[in-house]
This record gives sequence, C-alpha cells and structure tokens, in this order.
Amino acid sequence: MSSALDVARKVLLEAAASAGGMVKVPSRSTRRLEGAREAMRAAVTERHGDLAARKRANALMDAYGALAVDEREPFFRALAEFDASREAIDRAIERVWQAPDREQRTAAERDLRFALEPARVRVLREFARQPGGVKFVVDMRAQLRALDARRDPDLAALDTDLKDLLATWFDVGLLEMHRVTWDAPASLLEKLAGYEAVHDVRGWIDLKDRLDRDRRCFAFFHPAMPDEPLIFVEVALVDSLAGNVQELLDPSSPVKENAQASTAIFFSISNCQEGLAGISLGNALIKRVVSKLNAELPNLRTFATLSPIPGFAAWLRSLDAAEAPTPLREMLAQKRWRHDPEVVAALREPLMRLCAHYLVESKRPDGTALDPVAHFHLSNGARVERINWLADTSQRGLRASSGIMVNYLYRLDHIDANQDAYATAGKIATSNEVADLLKRHKRGLAQAPPAAG
Amino acid sequence: MSSALDVARKVLLEAAASAGGMVKVPSRSTRRLEGAREAMRAAVTERHGDLAARKRANALMDAYGALAVDEREPFFRALAEFDASREAIDRAIERVWQAPDREQRTAAERDLRFALEPARVRVLREFARQPGGVKFVVDMRAQLRALDARRDPDLAALDTDLKDLLATWFDVGLLEMHRVTWDAPASLLEKLAGYEAVHDVRGWIDLKDRLDRDRRCFAFFHPAMPDEPLIFVEVALVDSLAGNVQELLDPSSPVKENAQASTAIFFSISNCQEGLAGISLGNALIKRVVSKLNAELPNLRTFATLSPIPGFAAWLRSLDAAEAPTPLREMLAQKRWRHDPEVVAALREPLMRLCAHYLVESKRPDGTALDPVAHFHLSNGARVERINWLADTSQRGLRASSGIMVNYLYRLDHIDANQDAYATAGKIATSNEVADLLKRHKRGLAQAPPAAG
Amino acid sequence: MSSALDVARKVLLEAAASAGGMVKVPSRSTRRLEGAREAMRAAVTERHGDLAARKRANALMDAYGALAVDEREPFFRALAEFDASREAIDRAIERVWQAPDREQRTAAERDLRFALEPARVRVLREFARQPGGVKFVVDMRAQLRALDARRDPDLAALDTDLKDLLATWFDVGLLEMHRVTWDAPASLLEKLAGYEAVHDVRGWIDLKDRLDRDRRCFAFFHPAMPDEPLIFVEVALVDSLAGNVQELLDPSSPVKENAQASTAIFFSISNCQEGLAGISLGNALIKRVVSKLNAELPNLRTFATLSPIPGFAAWLRSLDAAEAPTPLREMLAQKRWRHDPEVVAALREPLMRLCAHYLVESKRPDGTALDPVAHFHLSNGARVERINWLADTSQRGLRASSGIMVNYLYRLDHIDANQDAYATAGKIATSNEVADLLKRHKRGLAQAPPAAG
Amino acid sequence: MSSALDVARKVLLEAAASAGGMVKVPSRSTRRLEGAREAMRAAVTERHGDLAARKRANALMDAYGALAVDEREPFFRALAEFDASREAIDRAIERVWQAPDREQRTAAERDLRFALEPARVRVLREFARQPGGVKFVVDMRAQLRALDARRDPDLAALDTDLKDLLATWFDVGLLEMHRVTWDAPASLLEKLAGYEAVHDVRGWIDLKDRLDRDRRCFAFFHPAMPDEPLIFVEVALVDSLAGNVQELLDPSSPVKENAQASTAIFFSISNCQEGLAGISLGNALIKRVVSKLNAELPNLRTFATLSPIPGFAAWLRSLDAAEAPTPLREMLAQKRWRHDPEVVAALREPLMRLCAHYLVESKRPDGTALDPVAHFHLSNGARVERINWLADTSQRGLRASSGIMVNYLYRLDHIDANQDAYATAGKIATSNEVADLLKRHKRGLAQAPPAAG
Repeated sequence: MSSALDVARKVLLEAAASAGGMVKVPSRSTRRLEGAREAMRAAVTERHGDLAARKRANALMDAYGALAVDEREPFFRALAEFDASREAIDRAIERVWQAPDREQRTAAERDLRFALEPARVRVLREFARQPGGVKFVVDMRAQLRALDARRDPDLAALDTDLKDLLATWFDVGLLEMHRVTWDAPASLLEKLAGYEAVHDVRGWIDLKDRLDRDRRCFAFFHPAMPDEPLIFVEVALVDSLAGNVQELLDPSSPVKENAQASTAIFFSISNCQEGLAGISLGNALIKRVVSKLNAELPNLRTFATLSPIPGFAAWLRSLDAAEAPTPLREMLAQKRWRHDPEVVAALREPLMRLCAHYLVESKRPDGTALDPVAHFHLSNGARVERINWLADTSQRGLRASSGIMVNYLYRLDHIDANQDAYATAGKIATSNEVADLLKRHKRGLAQAPPAAG
Repeated sequence: MSSALDVARKVLLEAAASAGGMVKVPSRSTRRLEGAREAMRAAVTERHGDLAARKRANALMDAYGALAVDEREPFFRALAEFDASREAIDRAIERVWQAPDREQRTAAERDLRFALEPARVRVLREFARQPGGVKFVVDMRAQLRALDARRDPDLAALDTDLKDLLATWFDVGLLEMHRVTWDAPASLLEKLAGYEAVHDVRGWIDLKDRLDRDRRCFAFFHPAMPDEPLIFVEVALVDSLAGNVQELLDPSSPVKENAQASTAIFFSISNCQEGLAGISLGNALIKRVVSKLNAELPNLRTFATLSPIPGFAAWLRSLDAAEAPTPLREMLAQKRWRHDPEVVAALREPLMRLCAHYLVESKRPDGTALDPVAHFHLSNGARVERINWLADTSQRGLRASSGIMVNYLYRLDHIDANQDAYATAGKIATSNEVADLLKRHKRGLAQAPPAAG
Repeated sequence: MSSALDVARKVLLEAAASAGGMVKVPSRSTRRLEGAREAMRAAVTERHGDLAARKRANALMDAYGALAVDEREPFFRALAEFDASREAIDRAIERVWQAPDREQRTAAERDLRFALEPARVRVLREFARQPGGVKFVVDMRAQLRALDARRDPDLAALDTDLKDLLATWFDVGLLEMHRVTWDAPASLLEKLAGYEAVHDVRGWIDLKDRLDRDRRCFAFFHPAMPDEPLIFVEVALVDSLAGNVQELLDPSSPVKENAQASTAIFFSISNCQEGLAGISLGNALIKRVVSKLNAELPNLRTFATLSPIPGFAAWLRSLDAAEAPTPLREMLAQKRWRHDPEVVAALREPLMRLCAHYLVESKRPDGTALDPVAHFHLSNGARVERINWLADTSQRGLRASSGIMVNYLYRLDHIDANQDAYATAGKIATSNEVADLLKRHKRGLAQAPPAAG
Repeated sequence: MSSALDVARKVLLEAAASAGGMVKVPSRSTRRLEGAREAMRAAVTERHGDLAARKRANALMDAYGALAVDEREPFFRALAEFDASREAIDRAIERVWQAPDREQRTAAERDLRFALEPARVRVLREFARQPGGVKFVVDMRAQLRALDARRDPDLAALDTDLKDLLATWFDVGLLEMHRVTWDAPASLLEKLAGYEAVHDVRGWIDLKDRLDRDRRCFAFFHPAMPDEPLIFVEVALVDSLAGNVQELLDPSSPVKENAQASTAIFFSISNCQEGLAGISLGNALIKRVVSKLNAELPNLRTFATLSPIPGFAAWLRSLDAAEAPTPLREMLAQKRWRHDPEVVAALREPLMRLCAHYLVESKRPDGTALDPVAHFHLSNGARVERINWLADTSQRGLRASSGIMVNYLYRLDHIDANQDAYATAGKIATSNEVADLLKRHKRGLAQAPPAAG
C-alpha cells in the first residue's frame, strides 16, 4: 500500500472517530488496518476542534488525490466501514417506543434519524466545506462508480450515501439555469462538446452551429462549481415536427428567424457528471426550458423531442421468428441494406410497427417502458408522438435502432395527467398515428402464418 | 378565517397528501379543518405530477403571503399536523430488526430514515424549488419564531424541521464570503446598517467610516439569495489591543495605514436572518476572516475581539450582599455615577474582579459560560484576554455591563486546544491578567466581613 | 518656488521641447525660468523615445500633484508658453498657397492643421495615456478654471486647448449611459448627491426616494473614468405635468405604478465635472433618456421638465419702475410675503406675466434667451409650456425666482423645428397658455400709468 | 446605380450641407450626381437640429450597409467631394495675419484649424455617435482601403481623414488591455484565430495550447467595440532564448511552470482591424505587456521576440552574383534542399551572414530598415539579438526566409537609446553575435573571387 493510502487511512480513521461516538463495524478488516484501528480507538476518546477537522479533511483530500487508480478501492472500503452504530440505533428506537407524549416522541424520532446516519457521511460533509470540496465529492463518487460499486454491498452502501448527500446539495432549488451561447467561455464549450452523449460534436464548426440564432442550449450549474455544467439540453427552433436528425444538424442549412418558429425540438439532452448518476435533473431542466422558451417566443406551439431509441435493435434481435419474421431479420443483417431502395421499402412498414410495439408495449417487470429514453420522457409526462423512418442514418443510429427515431411530445396541459397515468398504471400516451401503427402491428401478428422453422 | 387562509389550507392539505402515504396525526384539529381533511383524504388516494406539485407550491406560497399576521399561527398549525407516519416508522423498524444480512440492514436503515422525515418537510422542500423559494422558507421560519414557537410542541416541531432543513441548505460549504466596501450597492449597505446588532450605525458617515481603508467588513451570502447578507463581521486594523469602542468608532480619528497594523479587532458580529437562528455561521466566518487577513496582511500578529458583556449587569443584580457588597450596589444605582470621578475610581477594581468572575466562573447547569457572547467565542476556541474599564460608555453599554467590555483572543495555534477543553471540560482559557483578577476576587471574598443584613 | 514646481517646470520644458520642433514664444518669462529655458534649448536638439516620454509625463503629473494650490498658476503659465510655432505656421501657409494641384494642396492643408496645434497639446495628450490620465486632465482643467482662467489671455488659451482636447475624448459617441438605482455603489451615490446642483439631496432617505420605482436617474460615464459620473438627470414618472417640486420630492408621497404614468418630468439635471465646462452633454443625455423611456414605458405621452428660473429675481431687480411697479417691488421685499395670503394673491398675476416676459422676450445681444436654463432647453428644441406659481418654496427657490418654476416641453415631432427656429432666428416656442400670459403682460404695460417717482 | 446608393447620396449631401457653410469642390462630378447636387444646394441654405442629424446619419449608415461592393467607390467619391472650403481657409489665414495681438492671433489660429477640417469629417464624426458607429467607421475604412484607395488623390484624402479621426478615438490612453485565456468567449477566440497573421492557428487544440499556463496572450480593446480585438500579442514563457518556432508551438511539449521561466518570447503580434492600418498600436502593446509580465513574474529577465523575416528571400533573389554566389542560389533553388544534410550544412554560414547583412545594413532611401518586421521592432527600441538557422521550417517560413528567424531583444534600460539612435541616425543595435556575422560577411565579400559570368 502506498504511503498516500496509509496517510489517507490514518487521517480517515481519526476523522471518522472524532466525528461522533459511533462503533465501527470492522466487517472486512485486513491485517494492515490493525495499526490504523489502534489509532482510531485512541482517537475516539478525544474531542477535536473544527480547525483540526478542517485540517484532517484537507489532508484526507490530498491523500485521496495522490492515490493511484487501483488504490482507490481500499480507500473506499476503509471509508465504507464507518457505519452507523447499531447500538446507538437500537437505543434510539427504544426511546422512540418509550416516549410518553408526542413532544418526546418527536424529539426521539429526530435523534433516531441522526443515529441512522452513517459516520462516514459526516466525513463527506466535511469534505464539501473545503474549497473545491463539492466538486471533489462529485468526482469521488464518479470514481467509486467506475469501480462497479454496486456489485459489492459495502461499496454500494457508500455509493448510496454519496448519492443521498449529493441529492440534497444538488436540489433543483439550489441550481442555476443559464443559456449557453457562442459567447460562452471556450473552456465551457469544450466541456459541453465532451459531455454530449447523444449526437457527437464533430468539431467547433458543428458546435457553433448548435449555438446559432435558431438553436438554444441551456444548462444547469451549481454555485459551488460554477465552471462545470451538470446537464444540458440542445433545442432547435423549426417550422414543424423534425423527423431527421442529420438535416437538423446540417451546418449548411439556412438559419431561420426565431420569430417564425412554431416548434421547439429537444434533440439532445446529456448529463455531464457521472458523480450525479441517479439524481434526476433532466425533468426539471426540460420543464424550465419549456417555460422559458414559452415566455420568450410566444409563437412556439409545439415542444417535442427528436430522440434515439437505444434499445430497439437489441430487443429486435431477442425476438423469436414468430415475432420478427426471418426474412426481415435477414434483410436487416445485410451490411448495406439502407442503400438498397427495395430493401428499405420492404423494411419500412414492419420495422415501424415493431418499433411502436417496442416503445409502447414492451415493459420491464415493474411496468415501466423497456427503452430507457422512452422511460425518461414518459415519466416526465410526454407522449409517443411520431416514429420516423431513416431519421438517423449515422452508424450509431443504424446500429442502435435501424435508423429509426421517435418524437416525444410535451403538451403543458397533458403533462401531469400523462405522468400520473404512467407512474400509477404504466399507461403510455400516444398520438393517433402511433396508435394506428400499433393496431396494424397487432392485426399483422394475428394474420401472420406460423413461422417456418 | 380569511379566504387566503382557506386556500392555503386546501392547497397544503393536497400537497402534503400527495407527497407520500403518511398518516396525518390530527392532534389539535378544529372544526374548521374538517372540510379540508375530507379534501385531503380524497387527495391521498391520487397521484400528482411535478407540474401540479409546482403549481401547488406556488399557490401555497401566494396564499401564505396574503395572510394577515394573526392568521399565520393556524397556517403553521395546519402544516405542523403533517407528521411522519407512526405506522410507517414501526414497519420500518420491524424491517431493520429482521434484516438477515448487512446489505438488507443497510437498506432498511435508509428506509427508516426516510420514514422518520415528517411529511411537511417535503412541502417545505418544494417551496425552496420555486423562484425566491429559499428566501421564502428563511422568512417563514423568522415569522414562525416571532410567534414564540418554542412554547408549543407542535410549532416547536415545525421549527426544528425548518432549522434542520435550512442547516443543510446553508452548510458553510455552500456559502460565499465577500468583502463589503463603500463600493457595495447602497441597498446592501442599508441592510447591513439595519442588521448591525452590536453598535448601532448612526448614519451613512458612520457606516462609510466602518468601511474605510483601516476597516474590514466581511459577510456570508447564499447563492440562492445573493442580495441578502446572512452574517457579517466588522474588523478594525489597529496598533494594539483596542480597549474602548467609542474611540474605535470615532469617524474623526485618523485612518491608519494597513501595512503597519499589528492587530485585527473584531468589534461587531451580527446575524442578519432571524430565520437562520440556531444555525451556527459565526464560527466559520471568524475563522475564514482570520485566514484571509493573515494572507493579505502578513504584519498582523494579534486577532482579538472587543466584545460586549450583555449579561453582566443582570447577573450582578441577582447576587446577594455577600457576593456584591451593598455600597457597591448603591454606587451603581446612582444615575450619573460615571460622571463622578470618585465613584468611578471606587467601582473600578471590584467591578473588574466581579466581571472576571462572571465571565470565567459563572456557568450554566451544562457547564457552559453564562454569558452568551462569552459562550460563543469560547466555543470557537478563543480565550478571555483582557477586561476593559469604561470601554463602552454608550447608554446600552452602561446599562448592560456598567461600561465594561472584554477582549477575546484568537490564537491560531491554541484555538483547537481551547475549543476542546471548553467543549469537554468547560475549561475556559484566560490570560495571566484575567487570572490575576480572578485571584484577587477570590482573596477579596475570603477576606470580606460577613455582609451586614 | 517649491521644488515640486521646479521639477514640474524642468520636466515640462524637456517634454514640450522633445515633442516637436516648435519655437517657444517666451512672452511672459521670469528670471527664474531662464535656467529651465537653457535646458529646453539643449533638449530641442535631442530626440526622445516613448519610454522617456512616458516617464516624463508621469514625473510631470506627480510634480503637479505635489503643487500647493497657489503654485498652480505658474505651472499653467509655463505650460501656456509652449505655443504653436509661428514660423512653422507661416511656412505651412506658404505651402498651402503654392500647392500646384489638389493632391498637394490637401496634404499641405493637413500639415497646416498640425502646425496650428500648440506644442502643449502634445504634452496634455501624453498625460491622458498614463493610468488615470484622462481624469487627471479633467481635474487639471477644473483647477485651471478655479483660477478664473478666462481673465488672462495665456491661461484662456490653455483652457481652450484643454476644452478642445476633452471635447474629442468626451464625444457623445464614446460615452456610456447607465441607469443609476439604489443598487448602485454607495460611493457613486455619494458622488451624485454631492454633484446635485438643482435640488439639494437632504440625506440618504431623500436620495433613496429619488431612485425609487417611480423615479429614474440616468448618467453618462466615460470608459476611462468609470467611477465618475459626468452628468446625470433625475426623472419622475407621474400622471400629469408636475407644477410643484416640493410635492415631487416628498418622500412620504405614495409610489405610483410606472405602467400608469403618462408623464416623465425631468426635474434635475446636473453636470458633475467642472473640467468639462462648455462641453455640451446635457442635450444628448436628455434625448437618449427620452428614447429609452419611450421604448421602456409606451404609456408615456409627455416629456417635460420642471425647471428653476435662476435669473428671474436678479432681472426683476434690474427693471425700472415703469417695467416693475413700485408696490410690487415693495411687496416682494417683505421678508415673509409668501406667508401672507393677500400678498401672495396680489403678486401672482403680475409676477407670472413678468416671468413669461423674462423667459420668452428677454434676450442677450446675440438673440439667445437671457435665462441660462431657458437657453439650455430652448437650444435643445423644447418649448416654454407652463409657468407655475409657488412651485418651489425653498429658500433657494424664493430667492432666485420668487418661487416660480417653469415646465419646458419636449415633443419629439417638434424638437428639430424648435431647435432650428431658435438657433437661426432666436424664435422661442411657447404653449397657448404662456402666449396668453405674454399678451396680458403687453396689454398691462400699455395700460399702465406712468410710474410715480 | 442602386436605390441604396441614391438614398446614400441624397442623405449624404444634405448631411454635409447642413454641417456647415463649406463650399463643395465638385471636382470629379458625373452626370448622375446632378440631381443630388440640386438637393444639396437646397440643403445648404437650411439648418438642421440634432435629431435630424442623427436620423440622417442613421439613414446614411443603412444606405451604405445596403450597397453592393462595387457601389462603394461612388459613395466614397461623393463623400470625398465634401472638402474644406478654400475661401473659408483663405479668410481665416487673412485673420491670422492681421491679428493685432497674441490673444486674437490665438483665436484666429484656432478658427483656421477648424476651417481646415474637411466637411466630410463632420459626417464621419456623426456616424460614430450612433450605436455601433465607431465599428462602422473602422469597417468603412477597411472597405475603402480594399479599393486600393491610395492610388487616387480623392480617395486617399478621405482615407487620411478617416485615419486621423480614428487615431484620436483609438489613442492608447482610451484603450483597454486584457489578457485572453481559454476562458474567454469562444466568439472572441474564433476572431483571434482568424486574425493571427504570423503563425496560422491550426485548430482549437493549437489555440488552446497557445493560451496554456506557460503562454500569455494580451489584446487591446476599445470600449466602444468591446467584442473586437484591435491587436494581440502571443508570448511564450520559457527557459532560454527560443530559436525554433515549431518547437515553441508544439502542443505535445510539456507545460513549464511560470515561476521558473526566465525568458518571455513574443512569437506573434497581429493587427486585427484593417480599418486601423497606419495607427500604431503595437509599440504600446509590447511595452505594456513587458511591464505587466515584469510585475507579475519577477523571475523574467529577458524579453525578446522570435520573428519572421518576411523580405529576406525576395531580397536575396534581387542580388547579383557578386553578392550571392551562383552555387548558393542553385542549392536554394532545389525543391527539397532542407532534407539534404549536406546542402543544409553548406548553406548555413553564407545564408546566416547574408541575413545579418539584410537585417542590419539593407536600408530604404529614408535610412530605415528594409525588412518591415525589423523596422517595427527597431523603431520600438529593440536590437537584433540572434539569427536562428532552420527556425521556421513551415512552407511559409522556408519560402519567405529560407527557414531563418530572428530574435529581437527588448532591454528596458536600452530601449530609449536604441529608439533614438535608430530614429535620428538609422543606427541599428546588434548583439556581439550578430556583429560577428556581419564582420564575417564583409570579410567574405572582400575575399570572394569575382563572380564568374
């Protein structure tokens, strides 16, 4: 173990020890930790001022920063050991139960809440108080997740603590939304280009085009890390429901006047901070952008996405011959099918039907949509509006969804009802057009001859 | 009941109801709430999207804003009713105890923590997400406290929730410290002058003087309410330990060059937001200011306060004749004693001794210093450095502490030890000078004749 | 002579000498300058780089800054000596006349223009290149004017050079107009309050009231001295043509909603920099403010001033008995006339008539209005709209104009015609109401009995 | 002629006419202008207010903006016609000569100066007062120069007026210097990359590298066009006098710590505004950057450039065989000479000698250095420090100067003397190393056999 890790462990033990009277759960100890543990036992009996706490937090952060990548796991394991004290919890529960009146019961419940907080959380909170500390914690969680934390109960517990803590700091009420234009710092734009997860930025000209007058880009920022975008969305202001992303992103297409635009197409939404995984920011961002555009450009009548369908191709491959006829699979397996007009014509209807079926009727066991992007927009209250053939003919688009893309429609007056129906009953709202595709799909299945082995 | 209150109650009930499956504890219901409760029961069975939640929060905030002052208490009582669900807590405890392994135990503990959170907290959190919402919650707590909330268990529970919530939002790591100068917005300076709690600002000339080159003023701000100072400290850069506040604040005294200053005197520290009462910001502010000044002005060697002693006079009056001889009390009772040089000379030594005794040896039952300002600085790690005779001859100063003030000294290398000793053993650090006063006080008591009835 | 002045002179001589081959006109030399002149003669033959020029400018600025007030005049006189070279001018004129074609004539004319520029102007221009140099030159001119420069041809010539130079730097195209609100830096507001020349600011509450929601304050700034306002105007947004300044400035009057305001009253316009005297900024400021308010508040229909009449009382005193009857003069001479309702009633009509006559028909020899404020607004294209009785009952108002004030009206569609008529023919536009007063005044004079000695 | 041009001409004529009583010189009229001239004659007799002047300026600017490229010349010619009035000039000269005393002479000289100003200058000045007007005038001059204005006396006169006017607005004292970093707006960096005139920016990675921690980039800005850089310089912070620009610009080379850097290399200085041609900003920029770096990084001891020698290759080709031996020319004529080590070795010494001779001893008729970059740095006070072999092996570098580059050294304590010696006597300062090259060059010439025909 490197000396950086030694220092980290030592400081960590002291830090956690002094943070409160918790009893460490030494589940997965190693011999190398024994010395540290002695130090800890001594430390538990002492009390420390806040200057010391600060110094310790800084030392620990420096030590962590000096770790090699493969030394991070032992560090996280050491941190994970500093759990809540089981005895303290049991004592607190006892007091809750024996509380003679509401007043004491309320106080006892509050104490129990504090007793349930793992000791390590106090260390994490101290990190955040140091300069650059909030970003440090966000990055630390990203690095924890890179270790595939969820496979291991200890690391998973630490990850959950980090997530809960970050969720309170990154509550939407504490975030700032800013529009990003070509006048933004180059350093920020460089980050955005790197974070773009949906349609790769192919260079600065492409990026500039995405920030043009008929485009909008909005991002959430946290005041404690003002140079770091958290999530951003790219919007195109157009004349009608866009059905092809290459056209949308073509820098040579003429810039339209915003005043005429009737439709805002959200064509890309990307999370920037792996350390904030699982903390939902996209829903709030979309809705704030909708209100903002609504106020700024009163001509806008339609707010919709042009979205990828990342799970479609994989799902298609998983079907049996009864569900996806062999000739269709064979056509799709041709390398350059999309350059053969006959094949394209033959595939169009059956694939569109299957896609509608995939989006609307393929569910996870918990009743939510199988496709992750679909699930995101449906739980925000959107409906499945239109399925677009040959809408993304990039390699990525062809591979993931045979080039099909989908528009999700956000209608302000339907959002709540859709959200509610989806959340409670797994009901997915669709346009008539998509409903028709589904009907044709069902009829088609009914009429289909048994698949020939 | 006003219609604003009716609306508030209705929205509140729906809001709380939809926020989760809690069971309301209808402790102090009134007949007027029955209708609202019916509405709530209906609402509990529904689910709501986040647009609805936002609309509800805004409606509730508007309704609250429209309440007359005497309608606030019913509003707070209604809010206070939305407690944690006792059954949910019991179920969660059950699961904690029956957890077969550490993994499930951890998950169950986390569930219990959520179950312990009162339903009303979710409503408060939704407030903070609206524009201006953080300030709204801070002000709401200030108004709750104006009702003397702590006398009543329900309101006290609500106050505790607000405090816990605000404590996470106003964690020192999320605050920004800014220097305030005469170039700051007039609107901000006007607020500071209003919040100054220690030495009244006597107008703009006085204020400008406090922001002069040989003065420093630093304040904490929260990014979500950037125009509102949270707490600020005023510092004078001088040549030696200042012992008289009128001299310090005299605008006609010449401005010194900072480069020569050896001593930074913290002569005023004021909290600005009643809604943040009990959330400790002063300690962090003092220490950040000390580091900042240390870095900026390397000539500074001494960091100390010139502090009032708000509880001294009252404590003195509570003494019996054995502790505070009658002649002394009689002299003090003279209206204009401080203009009679003989009386002043006669009072000096005994009052200084008594004051040392009050500051260092008069304790609360929990072992902390009786004087609140003393307790604040001692728990930050300062020591009692010097007691100053006729140091504040303003009416306020004479009334509160017979004109005596005290310097608390912050020595960076002693702060942690002092803080620790005070926190664990109630031990209060003093200078030799103050220790001498204490000795003379004890000897004096020992020699004193029995007080004549 | 102080050593600061010696240094100044020496540097100045070198500076001017090296700035070009001019021949100094040693008109008003003194013996003490002889040594300096020798130095100069040596310097004329040398050439200097720009680092030296910079060093010299800085040395000279430091030397000037160190001068006592009564040493400034010799400094200015020394500077004034560095004139244009008469020989160089004559040579250049010769070349203009002998130019064989247009091309050479154009070049020769340009050379003549440069030859006509006094050598001292190059020194002044070098000042402006130093940090803080623009402000230095502005202040220097203010200090020159404080010496009553115009009485003396040498100083007057220097003043003219400074004015011409400052006029190019402070061209309206290079200025920035900013709105000033209560959120502006206190240091800026303090300056504004000090510069207010029309209605004294009576403290911070008065100042805050003037920056309230139903008020506007706009100022011009120069980018090279961003903390210094150049000129500012205060505007009240009201319901009708305001006729009383005390009502307008009463902080206890309710704040109106801007959306309803029909009328913008410019009630104060103050120049801030004595060093910019004679450089017209007010006209441009008023017109930019009118456009800005017009765009921001489309309900505004009337833009007018409520202006003092600073010369009326003095003019009145200068009249003979035929023009201003003795009883009237006697009434006005009573100390507290305005508290005697009978006197007030008796004075009203004759004073209003006389005032109309003063404003509209009393002219300077060049045909412009006698009253300086009237001249300012009339040459901007305003018309005399309404004369207001007891409109300013402050001491200043009663003394300067017997409490009368006047509204000048700015109508966008008449401004150019008014401006043109006034500039070319001295014609002053008036409302019907004012025209009526003038008629009554003439009729009154016609009917008046010969004044009794 | 387009209608935009018609409008332009009409407005222009009115504008110029009303701007003063000048007599137009209708030198190069065309029939098409006759109508416009009638309009002008009418206009001359009228007077106009400033709102009209503003309206006219805006109309004229709009009209100019609408012109096709080939319509600009007639527009400029129309503008050029509005000259100073020859009669007014002669009258003013008369008054200068007849002035009875100094006071009247001074006034008459000032009047003459104004009479000498062409009428068109007043139109240009009015442009600058409109929003965006300063940039408009800068761009207009750039477009005038694109017509090769200097070939034609009328256009050249207009160009000179524009230059004189812009020189007063863009006086160094009115400019702001800002450091440009990777945090600057992308839109600004995009402009910089486009303006880079010395070493092409090869994309954003290259640009980012030039703004790295061990680089500095500073630019001048004018407050009236804050988004437009005027001139910028790129500096590398290194350990020793850099002699190879490809190494300097290699993004893969490690970033050095500034604190260690001993040498600042100015490797690129680029003017951004063609409209400011002939207005010297580079000298002031270099000197301000030197002071700024000196203050910020006290370790810096050497300030030097690594400069191209744009005229060397052309000059070399102009030499006869006596001066540049035929074998040498033949070697250079080989396409890939620089990849043949023998040729490279054979060329090194003679080319370096010739280059020293070119830089130091090849002069224009006026005694200044032949090479334009040399002239720029020498007139700023630098000296020729080192000639570097194979220092720029880009195509451009090989073509322009056979890959040779030169360091000019800026020594603060020598700058003024160098500048003076160069300006007065054409004397060029060199290092010993360069002086040696020159000596060897002379000796070589002396020993050379007569060139074989």
